[in-house]
Amino acid sequence: MTITGTVPTLSQTVEGFSSALTASPEAGTITPKVTTQHQSGTATTVTVQAGPHNFVIDEPETLGGANAGANPVEHLLASLATCQVITYQVWAAKLGITVETLEVDAHGDLDIRGFFGVDDSVPAGFNAINTTVRISGPESAERYAELSAAVEAHCPVGDTLTRGVSINTDVEIQP
Amino acid sequence: MTITGTVPTLSQTVEGFSSALTASPEAGTITPKVTTQHQSGTATTVTVQAGPHNFVIDEPETLGGANAGANPVEHLLASLATCQVITYQVWAAKLGITVETLEVDAHGDLDIRGFFGVDDSVPAGFNAINTTVRISGPESAERYAELSAAVEAHCPVGDTLTRGVSINTDVEIQP
Repeated sequence: MTITGTVPTLSQTVEGFSSALTASPEAGTITPKVTTQHQSGTATTVTVQAGPHNFVIDEPETLGGANAGANPVEHLLASLATCQVITYQVWAAKLGITVETLEVDAHGDLDIRGFFGVDDSVPAGFNAINTTVRISGPESAERYAELSAAVEAHCPVGDTLTRGVSINTDVEIQP
Repeated sequence: MTITGTVPTLSQTVEGFSSALTASPEAGTITPKVTTQHQSGTATTVTVQAGPHNFVIDEPETLGGANAGANPVEHLLASLATCQVITYQVWAAKLGITVETLEVDAHGDLDIRGFFGVDDSVPAGFNAINTTVRISGPESAERYAELSAAVEAHCPVGDTLTRGVSINTDVEIQP
């Protein structure tokens, strides 16, 4: 990536959005979307298209897949961990806090008896998710605590997961 | 991918897991994990490692990023849509239902005033998520409805999102 003088800094981007959305609140609503397609002839290989980006999600051989990509629950954890990273970056810019290095790991326990229907009293999903944030830079512990609290309050994926959302599914049977 | 006579079918994999997990319920717990790292010198580019797989998550230029990959909320939608695809495949094998083609799209509305802290009464995450499943094959509408109900009950990402989970975050300030 080449940074030139004409590319706004993240602080400028954040300030620009904040001003624009204060003036025009209705401009805040966006509608992210993805399309996915099962790959014929495979057990669990799925291609994903998200705007100009495409990637493959699959299961490992032990679960019957071809291991052509990370699996859906790993992508769920990745969405949370990277959303925390990006929310740290954006709120560090907003609060004037310097961050030098930043890593976030995520893991959670899942009982696959739920997925396979072995015991219907076992939930199919995660019971809890744990993330570990490793951050370095010149600020005080208090400033990084302020930043962490702002991230917890404003991370879109974290908010979605902790609040829970309804999922509406339409099934179309094709001829 | 080459399928040979020694590779079990998805039905055999599902039956094998079901027998093994009925005999040893404690073997059902797995702990998926990912590690992520902010790329120094970028605003929002993050690398992800999930077992042997790595990929990049970023924001588009309009949000201050380098657009080096789909963003976290798109990955959240991708995790849900592909989890539905794979749960369709696994439960079709379990229920003896033939699926010929299968696509799942996902989208949801998000008000970025929450993310940017413009209005703290606005949630940062999705309010609802919509998926559209397009399926084809030789079975009756009733059989595909039976399959869809099984997927709704057993999809790990869907269950996580609709139930909501707690997120425990540890922050380590590095020297």
